[in-house]
Amino acid sequence: MRDHLLVVSDLRQIVGENNVISDADLMAPYCVDWRGRFRGSALAVVKPASTDEVAAIVKYAQAHGLSIVPQGGNTGLVGGSVPLGNGNELILSLARLNRIRSIDTATDSVVVEAGVSLAGLQAEAEAHERLFPLSLASEGTATIGGAIATNAGGTATLAYGNMRELVLGLEVVLHDGRIIHGLKQLRKDNSGYDIKQVFIGSEGTLGIVTAAALKLFPQPKSRLTAFCGLQSPEHALKFLELTKRSSGALLTTFELIPRLGLDLVLRHFPASRDPLFATHHWYVMLEFSSAAASLADMVAEQVIATAIELAIIEDGVFAKSLAQSDVFWALRENLPSAQTKEGASIKHDISVPLARIPGLIEAVNRDVLSVMPDIRPLPFGHLGDGNLHYNFQAAIGSDSRAFLARSEEIHAIVYRHVAEADGSFSAEHGIGQVKRHQLSHWKDEISLDVMRQLKALFDPDGRLNPGKVV
Amino acid sequence: MRDHLLVVSDLRQIVGENNVISDADLMAPYCVDWRGRFRGSALAVVKPASTDEVAAIVKYAQAHGLSIVPQGGNTGLVGGSVPLGNGNELILSLARLNRIRSIDTATDSVVVEAGVSLAGLQAEAEAHERLFPLSLASEGTATIGGAIATNAGGTATLAYGNMRELVLGLEVVLHDGRIIHGLKQLRKDNSGYDIKQVFIGSEGTLGIVTAAALKLFPQPKSRLTAFCGLQSPEHALKFLELTKRSSGALLTTFELIPRLGLDLVLRHFPASRDPLFATHHWYVMLEFSSAAASLADMVAEQVIATAIELAIIEDGVFAKSLAQSDVFWALRENLPSAQTKEGASIKHDISVPLARIPGLIEAVNRDVLSVMPDIRPLPFGHLGDGNLHYNFQAAIGSDSRAFLARSEEIHAIVYRHVAEADGSFSAEHGIGQVKRHQLSHWKDEISLDVMRQLKALFDPDGRLNPGKVV
Repeated sequence: MRDHLLVVSDLRQIVGENNVISDADLMAPYCVDWRGRFRGSALAVVKPASTDEVAAIVKYAQAHGLSIVPQGGNTGLVGGSVPLGNGNELILSLARLNRIRSIDTATDSVVVEAGVSLAGLQAEAEAHERLFPLSLASEGTATIGGAIATNAGGTATLAYGNMRELVLGLEVVLHDGRIIHGLKQLRKDNSGYDIKQVFIGSEGTLGIVTAAALKLFPQPKSRLTAFCGLQSPEHALKFLELTKRSSGALLTTFELIPRLGLDLVLRHFPASRDPLFATHHWYVMLEFSSAAASLADMVAEQVIATAIELAIIEDGVFAKSLAQSDVFWALRENLPSAQTKEGASIKHDISVPLARIPGLIEAVNRDVLSVMPDIRPLPFGHLGDGNLHYNFQAAIGSDSRAFLARSEEIHAIVYRHVAEADGSFSAEHGIGQVKRHQLSHWKDEISLDVMRQLKALFDPDGRLNPGKVV
Repeated sequence: MRDHLLVVSDLRQIVGENNVISDADLMAPYCVDWRGRFRGSALAVVKPASTDEVAAIVKYAQAHGLSIVPQGGNTGLVGGSVPLGNGNELILSLARLNRIRSIDTATDSVVVEAGVSLAGLQAEAEAHERLFPLSLASEGTATIGGAIATNAGGTATLAYGNMRELVLGLEVVLHDGRIIHGLKQLRKDNSGYDIKQVFIGSEGTLGIVTAAALKLFPQPKSRLTAFCGLQSPEHALKFLELTKRSSGALLTTFELIPRLGLDLVLRHFPASRDPLFATHHWYVMLEFSSAAASLADMVAEQVIATAIELAIIEDGVFAKSLAQSDVFWALRENLPSAQTKEGASIKHDISVPLARIPGLIEAVNRDVLSVMPDIRPLPFGHLGDGNLHYNFQAAIGSDSRAFLARSEEIHAIVYRHVAEADGSFSAEHGIGQVKRHQLSHWKDEISLDVMRQLKALFDPDGRLNPGKVV
């Protein structure tokens, strides 16, 4: 292998003196995920500013036996953008590919480079009276490239789909440095195999996404957020059913929160307050929105009134202003941070068919509580998509290390019930490093074989994000 | 190669005596497309009734050097489901895989076998107060398997996406007879590469889809169809823009028709009548629908009134009843048949970014008319998706054969302008047999190479639908 110093100087020839980081201290933030769970090391961090520079780096890596770890905002939860530290990895930061190349308000589409943040694109869309709908808690830092590589989900999937559904075209650098220039902005294109699909959700292991053509949507002119208290997950499902039947595409968010979740946010975010008078076992935060003026309000008020009348929900309150809507959203968005402040937790990101949700919650809680009676179950999240962040909080005052040592035991219970319910052990967070063993355990052998064959085809030397996914 | 009679008797062992057709006359309808443009021959037509039987046939074909042409409703327009007649092809009809395996109204999903017709699934969904939105002129015959294999589009794509966006999971028989059991009904599943995407739109060349898990939607409770006259494609675009901005997801269809299109329908379908008093150069048929009662009417009336006020459209009329809505739809749906009745036509299925549509129509018409001054341009179709069926009708009384002999010349003009506008020469009909040479001409070499590599990976012996796509 080429001498480290020579590698650094070669890379500087490609991207310029200041865009290669090789000092260990300066590299440190790139070598660890934001939660500090995955740590690695790299030969260097390289920051190209163009697709051609990305291609040149890939070719250089190929010529010299180096691996490449593509990195966007590094906000992932499964260690997918952190190097393993196997001694031959370059971190390829897409941060400088940060231009919005063009926006087409007639076609409702945009061409954007991989390093643009989700919030950056949302703001640009808004400036053109359009909506880019993908929304995540980490959207200020998370990038378009990362969202494509992980097929990101979030709170608007119910109405707008996952990232995959928002992609019209991709520019991709292949393992050998060739570039697919696939940035057409077409809603219909059946001119051969849709090869971009291979790269979406492949977590940087099959190619490096450098830019994308994405869908935009009309900007909502009416929007109403509501916060409702209800008795049980069964009631939440009935509420969802009623809401979908009577509002259809106007329902854009439907999030489930158990009382413990609200308690934790109220405790750790002192500015927050309970929007409802009484205490309820479960809560749903939902949002209606429409490009048509005043429709969302009209429909929302009717739906909530009906739900109360039918005793499907116990209480419900509307946001009377944008500020109040932000307050409701904060109760949901601050939940993960409140969990961290509260102490240790064991987390899962699962999905099952909707009808299986109440049974799943009952069975998982029962079996987990039977082995750890003081654990605090905290399943919450995107009920509208059948996707729960099925987390467990350590008992107050318990030993974090001892608690976390039992993670695998808890995972096994959760994933077994999820598999029995025809669900997924990784709904929106992907595989990365941390779920590779789960993948080989829960995925069928034929699908795994096809995945390995795709990996061998698109990355024959195993240089793209090694040790991730397959 | 195994003797023909032995092949037939072997296949009868797999699917039963009555489910193998080898008589040339009985095979004839399977060996030609519905327009009579593509003719081939086959060793036999095999009609399995289960996924296991499909797998057994594939293994048998592999063992004996035979090829397989999967066939659904055989309604395609590019010869994708017709054998070439190369002497070793079996037609594998999916007609007997015609069960709706399950329907889940909580999850809004259905598991359906490949041979179910689109109309059959639409009816089943409706019986459960749900909507299966994919809608095509040939939906009575076209099958789910064919729609997945071709990533079918149609008139509801604007709101609900192409077939790809409707697929939650697939059951696929691979080239070697292995079966991928991928029928999970999840809106979010990032547990590894999404391998089903490879098979969607691959036209039966990479694997055989035997069943699918598909999305359903709430049934519209309000729906309003309108028929509007306007001056030009520019005005149609402005109208689309206004409509999207003010109705968002409520706009579910937006179809452009030139006066010639309406003329042909009025001429060849005597029961039809012009919905508007005056004559207009162009027409738009659009539909609004919503799961929320009365919303579609409310929004539609407002939008049309505004469009007239702003002189974006010249006139517009609403369907006052379901019957009248059907009349409007018939004007659009009968257009292809009216073209056939009128005489010979040269057809294209193209898409471009929306803003390019008016310029494209102007440039293509100019250049085509300059080489054939009496040709009659008839671009119509799914303007909302940027997808036009850019057809040309022969002059009245002209010689069809001489006209059609100039097809390639016209194709070259159309596709050159489409390429210059960053469009696609095959928006929703696929490649099949007929557009293979266009594919190799208009697709970039790197994408073609990736396509060939995928073909080599998923069908190393070239036995799946040979001579199609790649």
